[in-house]
Amino acid sequence: MLKPLGDRVLVEIVEDTETKTAGGLYVPDSAKEKSQRGRVVAVGNGKVLENGTRMAVEVNVGDVVYFAKYGGTEVTLEGKNYSLLAERDILAIVE
Amino acid sequence: MLKPLGDRVLVEIVEDTETKTAGGLYVPDSAKEKSQRGRVVAVGNGKVLENGTRMAVEVNVGDVVYFAKYGGTEVTLEGKNYSLLAERDILAIVE
Amino acid sequence: MLKPLGDRVLVEIVEDTETKTAGGLYVPDSAKEKSQRGRVVAVGNGKVLENGTRMAVEVNVGDVVYFAKYGGTEVTLEGKNYSLLAERDILAIVE
Amino acid sequence: MLKPLGDRVLVEIVEDTETKTAGGLYVPDSAKEKSQRGRVVAVGNGKVLENGTRMAVEVNVGDVVYFAKYGGTEVTLEGKNYSLLAERDILAIVE
Amino acid sequence: MLKPLGDRVLVEIVEDTETKTAGGLYVPDSAKEKSQRGRVVAVGNGKVLENGTRMAVEVNVGDVVYFAKYGGTEVTLEGKNYSLLAERDILAIVE
Amino acid sequence: MLKPLGDRVLVEIVEDTETKTAGGLYVPDSAKEKSQRGRVVAVGNGKVLENGTRMAVEVNVGDVVYFAKYGGTEVTLEGKNYSLLAERDILAIVE
Amino acid sequence: MLKPLGDRVLVEIVEDTETKTAGGLYVPDSAKEKSQRGRVVAVGNGKVLENGTRMAVEVNVGDVVYFAKYGGTEVTLEGKNYSLLAERDILAIVE
Repeated sequence: MLKPLGDRVLVEIVEDTETKTAGGLYVPDSAKEKSQRGRVVAVGNGKVLENGTRMAVEVNVGDVVYFAKYGGTEVTLEGKNYSLLAERDILAIVE
Repeated sequence: MLKPLGDRVLVEIVEDTETKTAGGLYVPDSAKEKSQRGRVVAVGNGKVLENGTRMAVEVNVGDVVYFAKYGGTEVTLEGKNYSLLAERDILAIVE
Repeated sequence: MLKPLGDRVLVEIVEDTETKTAGGLYVPDSAKEKSQRGRVVAVGNGKVLENGTRMAVEVNVGDVVYFAKYGGTEVTLEGKNYSLLAERDILAIVE
Repeated sequence: MLKPLGDRVLVEIVEDTETKTAGGLYVPDSAKEKSQRGRVVAVGNGKVLENGTRMAVEVNVGDVVYFAKYGGTEVTLEGKNYSLLAERDILAIVE
Repeated sequence: MLKPLGDRVLVEIVEDTETKTAGGLYVPDSAKEKSQRGRVVAVGNGKVLENGTRMAVEVNVGDVVYFAKYGGTEVTLEGKNYSLLAERDILAIVE
Repeated sequence: MLKPLGDRVLVEIVEDTETKTAGGLYVPDSAKEKSQRGRVVAVGNGKVLENGTRMAVEVNVGDVVYFAKYGGTEVTLEGKNYSLLAERDILAIVE
Repeated sequence: MLKPLGDRVLVEIVEDTETKTAGGLYVPDSAKEKSQRGRVVAVGNGKVLENGTRMAVEVNVGDVVYFAKYGGTEVTLEGKNYSLLAERDILAIVE
């Protein structure tokens, strides 16, 4: 497994067919080719501020998140698709 | 529903036909193709400053806002059109 | 009406014919096609500094200002032309 | 007249023929087409620092200054040529 | 041997054939040409913050890390392949 | 004469023929067309830091300096060639 | 001789033939045309932080360093080749 560094977050990608029924979330046609949702499986220790403290990331393991189309790095671990995302590329939590 | 992260704001887009009669707001012809107004339905916890505190966003749920033409991410939730906007892309509150 | 956010300022554009007689202000020929002057009708709460305080904008409602040629967003409200400008795009107060 | 905002400075442009005899200042041939000197006629309140204080500009009304070739905004007031310059575009005081 | 400066990290590159069996980590086909994994063999003293303190890097000697495809400088020391990476180019620790 | 503003420095350019015998300094062939050395004749008050203090420049009047090939503004004063340089464009003091 | 300013470092370039036998350091073929190693002969006083203090550079006179391929300014002093490098362009100390 991967332990993200800094303010990075490891997200297991959720395919569109699954999320539509659960949360009723749809994206415009142009974005349907690639899922922008996933479940948080690991979070980094947070970004270092100029005063030397770390700011914890806003999401927690288990959250389903909606992330930006570009920005993350895709990795495959034991057959599952993940994305390593910087916190700023996660737009919202799907409730 | 989506819970925005950081200084992001979820706005339900208000089509032009509705706003014109209510607030008397018009935009130049070149901008009429796509509405730049919406109702705030959820707000993030705010931007993290370098001293580690979060700065609450200036808009509240229920506000009708006028936002920049480019910058937000469009999402469709249960048939309604929304935009996920960073606070800096919201220009003004429509009163 | 619009309530500007952050350090934005709402300015009602003053056409060139009016300002020339009042304040004696002329702009070079190349800039005459579009007015760069207006009356401030609403101001935002100011920019947030990194220490968490807001810095009030330097202009007040009623000021006639000279603003940069590019940068603002034009809006039309009940037949009048306005520009939503960031404070940094306002160059001077016309006295 | 114009009251500059922030760290901006209003400079009345001094044509080359006048300055040469007074201060002995010459610029290379390639820059002679447009004067880079002027007299300060008004100064802004200064730039806002991140700690919330304003930093007064280094030049005073009456100073003759040498400014960068590009950067200012030219305005004509009652037949005289001025430039509205950010403080960083003023390179030196002509003594 | 090399002692990295600032927030740089020296990583001995681990070829793909080795890592797949150990941690089950796979990368998409397009990234397989060049390994993005390595073992940390030396770390710098960390980045200097604006308050004058150094922030220790998050990884330690011995950690196996997953790093960004672009960003590091490759060096060969006594027949082994290394990469000198800035901390921000290391995405995660492989556990 | 010119009094530099901010962290700017006024340098009288020293032609290559003179410096070679004095300090033994040579530059690669490709840079020989234009001198990168000069004597400091005036210094500004220094750069303003975000805490409101000014940081004195590192060079003093009389220092012979080696400066970057690009960055300064050339001026001619009473037949002599000068360059107005930002402190960051001065690379070293020639001892 | 040159006294570097700010966080700059003066490095006497070490040709590849010499370093290979001493420290066993090799660089990939594509980088062999130009050496990226040198001995530190002079260091600046360090970078000024926003709180007004200077941060000493991490390398000392006598250190053999490995530096980035691009970034420094080459100078020739009494027949020897040097590079004036900003501290951030020095990647590691060769031990």
